[in-house]
Amino acid sequence: MEIPEDSLFGVDNLPYGVFAPAGDALRVGVRVADKVIDLAAALEDPVFAQPNLNALLAQGPRRWREVRHRVRELVDGEIDATAIHELAAVRLALPIQVGDYVDFYASIDHATNLGRLFRPDAEPLLPNWRHLPVGYHGRAGTVVVSGTDVVRPRGQRRTDSGTPDFGPSRRLDIETELGFVVGVGSALGTPIGVDEFADHVFGVALVNDWSARDIQAWEYQPLGPFLGKSFATSLSAWVTPLAALEKARIPIPEQTPEPLPYLRGDEPRGLDIDLTVTWNGQDVAHPPYRRMYWSPAQMLAHLTANGASTRTGDLFASGTISGPEPEQRGSFIELSWGGSQPVDVNGEKRTFLADGDEVVITATAPGPHGNRIGLGEVAGRIRPSNGR
Amino acid sequence: MEIPEDSLFGVDNLPYGVFAPAGDALRVGVRVADKVIDLAAALEDPVFAQPNLNALLAQGPRRWREVRHRVRELVDGEIDATAIHELAAVRLALPIQVGDYVDFYASIDHATNLGRLFRPDAEPLLPNWRHLPVGYHGRAGTVVVSGTDVVRPRGQRRTDSGTPDFGPSRRLDIETELGFVVGVGSALGTPIGVDEFADHVFGVALVNDWSARDIQAWEYQPLGPFLGKSFATSLSAWVTPLAALEKARIPIPEQTPEPLPYLRGDEPRGLDIDLTVTWNGQDVAHPPYRRMYWSPAQMLAHLTANGASTRTGDLFASGTISGPEPEQRGSFIELSWGGSQPVDVNGEKRTFLADGDEVVITATAPGPHGNRIGLGEVAGRIRPSNGR
Repeated sequence: MEIPEDSLFGVDNLPYGVFAPAGDALRVGVRVADKVIDLAAALEDPVFAQPNLNALLAQGPRRWREVRHRVRELVDGEIDATAIHELAAVRLALPIQVGDYVDFYASIDHATNLGRLFRPDAEPLLPNWRHLPVGYHGRAGTVVVSGTDVVRPRGQRRTDSGTPDFGPSRRLDIETELGFVVGVGSALGTPIGVDEFADHVFGVALVNDWSARDIQAWEYQPLGPFLGKSFATSLSAWVTPLAALEKARIPIPEQTPEPLPYLRGDEPRGLDIDLTVTWNGQDVAHPPYRRMYWSPAQMLAHLTANGASTRTGDLFASGTISGPEPEQRGSFIELSWGGSQPVDVNGEKRTFLADGDEVVITATAPGPHGNRIGLGEVAGRIRPSNGR
Repeated sequence: MEIPEDSLFGVDNLPYGVFAPAGDALRVGVRVADKVIDLAAALEDPVFAQPNLNALLAQGPRRWREVRHRVRELVDGEIDATAIHELAAVRLALPIQVGDYVDFYASIDHATNLGRLFRPDAEPLLPNWRHLPVGYHGRAGTVVVSGTDVVRPRGQRRTDSGTPDFGPSRRLDIETELGFVVGVGSALGTPIGVDEFADHVFGVALVNDWSARDIQAWEYQPLGPFLGKSFATSLSAWVTPLAALEKARIPIPEQTPEPLPYLRGDEPRGLDIDLTVTWNGQDVAHPPYRRMYWSPAQMLAHLTANGASTRTGDLFASGTISGPEPEQRGSFIELSWGGSQPVDVNGEKRTFLADGDEVVITATAPGPHGNRIGLGEVAGRIRPSNGR
């Protein structure tokens, strides 16, 4: 295969997804530059003739390495032309059947910003924040693949009278996140240790956890976000295996106080990934994943510390990625400081999402040869609310 | 079939479950008195030769009525003896493959009690409580069938020093709830109206949403309960179809203020169900479902008001059922008033769950002929924490 030298999707990347050629059934593929290799055709294994990656994920790390090796051989050698499709000509589907979806809150800059905005008279970080990766369960059934339109949600909104009204969200926002896909699950009663991360997690995808801030602000006490989040969570069509991100592994920033023993590990599980958020085509933020306080290995160890089981296809996300600089903020509520400091979008002053707006999140990480590799983009456009 | 006249599981009930005869595969059955009818054998339809009810649930209300009619004919007529099993001789499995699990907070007495216990200096009900059924997503992957042992969870617990420690929960509790099983799902962007409840919901089951109060108290700000709940949620093995509960339908108590239009309906969707909680065999509480403030139809309308889709097998639960009287409280934190007023259990003074304790929740509802019908019990025993 011919791969442009500067491609973010070269042989060092090889992310997995699920696609359908025109008029044909879904199957597993690997993206190479602007092409997709049909693994069901090229490797003739029924595990790839599936509408999601779950069967492959369940086979575990040894098999993942083997398949990655086979795919590299294919790319370096001869592939039957019928097994190669133009990316632009295929339909991409949600890559995993999601088991449970958990969203964390692992950026100290994001948590601090939201604390300042929501509780201006109090300490921005709550007392538990530096002791555990705060998280909650989201709605697995409304995780959608990148490119799916997002219908503006309706819901209850607080009013000055004290009585809420009901209507389309006026503060529709994004959350720029990384998602981690569980391949090999774990049994009830058996926590996953911090250094067992790679025995269970297959790879990484981009997530946009769309958020209706006005609905969330009214509903979230005392049991947390619900309808302000559950209308849609977008996932990139491509899942980059951990094996492609070896060069992106870095230590996480220092944690003070030192976490409890079950959250301590020996392996560096921070990720040196640079994200870009575009709003109607204009770059508006560059969140740096390397600043995240809690590592994904700590998130998974915490998620299972109480004995909760995990399943193939479980998805857990980092929470909004924000850095300390204003242009590193991964949500519009932060970028516009609660709506008080509009953002310039193609010359317009903007705060939250308008109907028709499109948001595209992309990301790159260091590759093994001084090159960069890309994560699959996560994109979505806002459609007007359905009246009812 | 011979059915004792006072059976809670006679021809007016006919709940569905999933079971395996000794050494054989799972299949769908109906409970009649202390017997189970093997529907895969008796009706010879592949929809019953499944390890869960989901295929049947997806077929919708007309088919549910048809199958119920066929089962009544079977019970009133002749059934091949090979299709009848002793309940005591079969293994019962989780009846549904759970899509998303949502837990509400719909009892005004429970919410008021917890408000008094957790926020003694403030109004017990938060401002949103009378305007919307507060709820959140729980962990679908740790819903287990009645009879499954529950391993005491470990987790972070607040200490006087301000720094948490980690260990087995010291305040392990129950939550006595009803669960509602979605049969026919709904599309993204299409809310389910309050009066469309029966087009989507198949039936009712008992739920015990085990809760580690100490873990919950430390972790739950600001994103809600997580590890304090996610270690186990027990579901009864039998799902009672709505059709069996027609005589139990009553109006809900008056709601003040009147809810917003999307939460108003014409059909009575309260349920006159009496629950009993036994702790190591002793009756300790009798929560009355008829007192619940929000109806299950309002819960489902709210859950989908933002456009969230639903799937076959989604489970939503009522939250702890408590009445106004002390003996009507559906959790031990309420029965023992935060641990300050021990409960008498077989002559011992008890507050929260000890290792080896067993909790069994049962319930009955009025049947069509002045009789009572039973919901399948939800039982669980506490096993000691796994050290690690």
